[in-house]
Parts: sequence; C-alpha cells; structure tokens
Amino acid sequence: VDALATRTKIIDRAVEVASTAGLEGLTIGTLAGDLGMSKAGVLGHFGSKEALQLAALDAAVRAFTREVPGRVRGLAPGRDRLLRLCDAWIDYLDGGRITAGGCFLTAAAAEFDGRPGAVREAVVNASRRWLTALHDEVRAAVQAGDLPAHTDTDQLVFELNAIALGANQAIQLHEDPTAGPRARRAMRRALTAPARHRQG
Amino acid sequence: VDALATRTKIIDRAVEVASTAGLEGLTIGTLAGDLGMSKAGVLGHFGSKEALQLAALDAAVRAFTREVPGRVRGLAPGRDRLLRLCDAWIDYLDGGRITAGGCFLTAAAAEFDGRPGAVREAVVNASRRWLTALHDEVRAAVQAGDLPAHTDTDQLVFELNAIALGANQAIQLHEDPTAGPRARRAMRRALTAPARHRQG
Repeated sequence: VDALATRTKIIDRAVEVASTAGLEGLTIGTLAGDLGMSKAGVLGHFGSKEALQLAALDAAVRAFTREVPGRVRGLAPGRDRLLRLCDAWIDYLDGGRITAGGCFLTAAAAEFDGRPGAVREAVVNASRRWLTALHDEVRAAVQAGDLPAHTDTDQLVFELNAIALGANQAIQLHEDPTAGPRARRAMRRALTAPARHRQG
Repeated sequence: VDALATRTKIIDRAVEVASTAGLEGLTIGTLAGDLGMSKAGVLGHFGSKEALQLAALDAAVRAFTREVPGRVRGLAPGRDRLLRLCDAWIDYLDGGRITAGGCFLTAAAAEFDGRPGAVREAVVNASRRWLTALHDEVRAAVQAGDLPAHTDTDQLVFELNAIALGANQAIQLHEDPTAGPRARRAMRRALTAPARHRQG
C-alpha cells in the first residue's frame, strides 16, 4: 500500500513537471529533490526514465478521460451529447484545472512526433483512441438523425480536433481570453453545417 | 566572411536538430560533434544556448516567411490571394521540405508556452506577427468585396490557424496522407461561409 501511494505521489509530481517542462524535461534527480527522495528511490518504482514518462502520460490520459468523455457518460447519443462533449473539451483546455501547461497530450504530441520510440507510440495511440471515440460520437449523432446522413464524419472530426488545438495554442501561448468562446462558436458552426461526403 | 559562414552553418544544423529534438534538445556539445567543431568554437559564435535557440528560431521564421507569405507577394489583395496563401501554408506543412519535424514555430510554441523567458517571448511575437499578417489579408479580401462586409475577421483568423494546427498534428503525429486535402477543404469551407460579426 505504501509503495502504491509513493508511486502515485511520484506520478502526480511528474505530470505537474512535464506539463510545463515537457516529458523530456522530466529528470529523476529533480523529481527526487522535489519529493525529498533519493534518485534510486524514485527510479526503483519505475526502472527507467521512459517508464516514468509512460506512467505520467497514462495518468494525464486518465484525467482527460474523466474530465471530457466522463462528463457525458450516460447521456443519450445525438447532437446534444456531442455539443456537451465539445464544451467539456474546451472547459478542460480553458479551465487550467488539470495541467497548468495546457493539454498534456497535445504538448507530448508536439514534443515526440519526430522521436520514434515507446513514448511516441503511446502518444499516437492515445490520440487515435480519442479521435476514434469522437468519430463514434459523430456517427451516433448522424444515426440519431441530428446531423445530415451524408455528413463526412472524418472531415468533421478533423475540424473539431483542429478547433481544440487552436484553442489550446491561443490559451497557452497568447493567453487569449476570447479563445474558449471562439472555439465553442467554431465547433457549433462546424456542427451546424457539417462537410458532406463527396459522391464518388 | 568565414565567421559568418560558420555561424550560418551552425544555425542550419541547429534548426535541423531542434525540428525533431526541440529547442531544449539542442546542446552545444552535440552540435559541436555534428559539425566537427569544439564546444568553445560553437559557443563563441553565440555566447549562450539561449542566443543559439533564438538564432535557430529566427532562421525558421525566415524560412516560413519565404515559403508562405513570400509566395503571394505582388498578387492583388482579395479572396484569390488569401486562398493561395492558405495553400502555400498547407504546402509548407505537408511538403516536409523545410523541417522534417513539422512546423518549427508550432513545436516551439508547444515547447515554450509554459516557460517564461526570451525564447517564449520570441515565439509569442513571431506567432502574433503571422496572425496579424493573416488578419490583414482577410481584411483586404473584405475590402475587395470578396468576403461579406460583416465577416468576423478575428473568428476567421482563429479558424484558419486552427485548421493549420490540425493539419500539422495529423501529418506529424499520425502521418495521415489525407490531412493536407482535409485542411484545404476546411479552409475553403471557412472562407465560403465566414463567421459574421454579431451585432451589438
């Protein structure tokens, strides 16, 4: 039980540090200092810096899952649920409650997109799972008759994700207080007149 | 002349390294090894790692300026010029000709958004200059009568920038060959029915 509590404490601190310094900016030495532990003590819980990075990423993904898809669980599929999901997404990016440095996954994606390895794989998989979940939500809204039958679901998912990335950059880099409202408006515009599948 | 050529050689290599390893991943030692120079020799040209990071950022911004706004210089303002500018932007992101690791500025923005200092300031300023230039292009298209008079230019610039960020992530992280075409289509959709200013 103590070992689990210590491991959780290390991971929580690692998520905090990585949210501003990046996953590569995590060092066993700094974490140990922050937590009043020895380097060997920290390393003993993970075995390697990469395992610690993967554990921090996993914790950040679980927080996102709780705060975004978790907020619409139980609601009937359709346009309303999709809008609430989008709003929860922007709340997550705009609230600064989870990670002071902005969306952890977005930062990790930008950091690791050019660096092959286990961390990049984990980032790609987490991003893909989320885009697939979003795709399922869009398709459910089409099936519920809330979006046109010929909605190009891939295009719509691309556009919604792009809007969230735009909001994240405007909030984090430009500290722009209009970013959240602009993103909500852009998502509503994308959902009101969604791109249509081109007939082959 | 030799000093200038050496400085340019160091900066070019620094841009290459930073485009995958990030600006923090730049180390004087690695650069020196890559270029067959001493660490003191590299450092002598810049004085500090931060000055080297700023020089690499500046070189990347100049490449972007040449490849994106530089491609529409001399064209008459209006919708056609704006569309060509958007296409040049996506070409830049999708071509992989400049920086293998994707848009240098986007990566630097994600890396430094939570780290106060001169590099963050330079990234914020470069991003702001580009968004202002884009804003001027949109306004010129409105003035030319190619976009509705009540176009919400801030909202449209937010949406175009978001689409470019979405394309960059899809290309770099997911190696998605449909990202370029999707982004071009999304930009055309945004320009065809631009958001309107809300009447006060």
